[in-house]
Amino acid sequence: MRVNGEPFKSIWPEPDRSRVNIIDQTQLPHVFAVAHLRTLQEAAHAIKAMLVRGAPLIGVTAAYGLSLALQKDASDDGLRRASEILLATRPTAVNLQWALREMADKLLVLPQEQRAEAAWNHAGVLAEDDIRLCEAMGDHGLVLIEEIARRKQGERVNILTHCNAGWLATVDWGTATAPMYKAQEAGIPIHVYVDETRPRNQGASLTAWELGQHGVPHTVIVDNAGGHLMQHGLVDLVIVGTDRTTASGDVCNKIGTYLKALAAFDNDVPFYVCAPSPSIDFSISDGLRDIPIEERSPLEVTHLKGLTEDKRIETIRITPENSEALNYAFDVTPARLVTGLITERGTIAANAEALAKTFPDR
Amino acid sequence: MRVNGEPFKSIWPEPDRSRVNIIDQTQLPHVFAVAHLRTLQEAAHAIKAMLVRGAPLIGVTAAYGLSLALQKDASDDGLRRASEILLATRPTAVNLQWALREMADKLLVLPQEQRAEAAWNHAGVLAEDDIRLCEAMGDHGLVLIEEIARRKQGERVNILTHCNAGWLATVDWGTATAPMYKAQEAGIPIHVYVDETRPRNQGASLTAWELGQHGVPHTVIVDNAGGHLMQHGLVDLVIVGTDRTTASGDVCNKIGTYLKALAAFDNDVPFYVCAPSPSIDFSISDGLRDIPIEERSPLEVTHLKGLTEDKRIETIRITPENSEALNYAFDVTPARLVTGLITERGTIAANAEALAKTFPDR
Repeated sequence: MRVNGEPFKSIWPEPDRSRVNIIDQTQLPHVFAVAHLRTLQEAAHAIKAMLVRGAPLIGVTAAYGLSLALQKDASDDGLRRASEILLATRPTAVNLQWALREMADKLLVLPQEQRAEAAWNHAGVLAEDDIRLCEAMGDHGLVLIEEIARRKQGERVNILTHCNAGWLATVDWGTATAPMYKAQEAGIPIHVYVDETRPRNQGASLTAWELGQHGVPHTVIVDNAGGHLMQHGLVDLVIVGTDRTTASGDVCNKIGTYLKALAAFDNDVPFYVCAPSPSIDFSISDGLRDIPIEERSPLEVTHLKGLTEDKRIETIRITPENSEALNYAFDVTPARLVTGLITERGTIAANAEALAKTFPDR
Repeated sequence: MRVNGEPFKSIWPEPDRSRVNIIDQTQLPHVFAVAHLRTLQEAAHAIKAMLVRGAPLIGVTAAYGLSLALQKDASDDGLRRASEILLATRPTAVNLQWALREMADKLLVLPQEQRAEAAWNHAGVLAEDDIRLCEAMGDHGLVLIEEIARRKQGERVNILTHCNAGWLATVDWGTATAPMYKAQEAGIPIHVYVDETRPRNQGASLTAWELGQHGVPHTVIVDNAGGHLMQHGLVDLVIVGTDRTTASGDVCNKIGTYLKALAAFDNDVPFYVCAPSPSIDFSISDGLRDIPIEERSPLEVTHLKGLTEDKRIETIRITPENSEALNYAFDVTPARLVTGLITERGTIAANAEALAKTFPDR
């Protein structure tokens, strides 16, 4: 997608294989800075310190990180050590584990002298695969937006989204944003209400930034506002991403998603989830019971980072000194509140039957 | 209620009538500062600049402001001019208009030389009336908490609240907080989840502060978190305030209240609204249709004020420079989602019949 009018991806390799380039997302939305990863250590740091975040992007960054390590030591032991270092950066990230296992499977069977090149190439394949997945969801989601646009006869289509399931979280297109970018490309007038998504503000800082850079009209709202907007007919559909969707269609996503799903249901607003198949966990069914919810530092609730008037990045505390805070990172939206899952194989109902039928291979 | 162990009200007159004292709420939770209002102008500024806020407290402050004005000019003209200046501070505040009309009715019939003293005394009566109202709601709400406490057999009762309907918004006790303070006094172990209440953070800054100062165990959460807590049985009841409740029981309150009501309903968590009779508007019925929702400055969404590590108050921007923001201040919770209204005359169903029966005089 575009940044300052130029097409960008969230990660791109240097053709001479000397480094891989990323956008330092910790500095967004205030500073757009490209960072270079030249070593395994730099790649591990980029994941750990969240210069890159979002499951698909973490997986691809780890794959390139492994490739950089193999340039120095392509032995079985070197590969294992590098994998361990990368795995430790975000221990709960499923994509990270998956990408590293996939790489190891491909590489361990090769002679050492071929591994570095093969790794680099396969990291590129993973990136391309992710882009293809996102684009496919974009095309399926576009159909839903087109239908609403037809009904509204040229009036703008208002989409609400939560958190950042944008191209910054993937390699390109994003998951929840892919249908929006596709609609924009198709000339449909759209407008996106962006939940700021406290506590980490991924909506206000990342989604608003990427939509703005790509020229998509949008408005930042506080997380409290979506219900009111839906009550007054100001939202035509909701599209969000997912961190993990169960075999029965329960959706685990950023904390607060459930509240928007309730409001959508109460106001007959369609509520769609972009769920690429790698995010679907066919081993569990009841999301509320079976998905452990990460509890993060209370400092994310009590403190906030932003830009002062004289352009310094500053952190402030907004709560009383002695008040406790609690920080659950995700919640689970029961399948009954989900209008449909937009997968790379089409838009389907959020239930066990539709999921099993669409992914018989899983 | 207590601050640093000392009993405080949000406004108290100096016995010699030289001034009225308030807490400068713009500096909370980081600085506790008492401000003195010696003139009409200082009182008007305190309301306009939100050193005092909350409908009941605004009304009482205006009454004292009028009293201070009459000490200098007790003529009919003087009274009228002072009222106009006070009215202009917050043009949409219903309590402000009501308090000033009430004062004028009482004072215009008196000889000029008696007016200043009568005004001072009547301002005190308004303050006492408000305290009585809040205490009565506290007693009725306490019954609900006691029931839950009995059922939980000594385990702590978890209450969720939104925004600040605390003693800082009234003269003492607060509306939604009155049952909590009463329960604390009665020795019931309670714990309050405080929604931070973006965009102005009245929960994180005011409610958390006043509960903390009074020794009530509490935890600040982001507005996104309440649904997840209710799904997991971590909330026993919700108690919120109201800015305006209709004759049919629809509740207008701080933006985001509706989302919490939906989550409470979805999880069978009782959802109560402390609605003192002055906040009930018997002239309207359909809250969604008939209550105009104030749209405030987008700067409240894009910028935040807090304390830096080196103890400076600083304002930061959290959104991209060119992203628009939208700021609706309130939403309407339909009566069907409200378990009950806690009024000064008892806890009643949120419907036209119960309201008419409880307030036949209205």
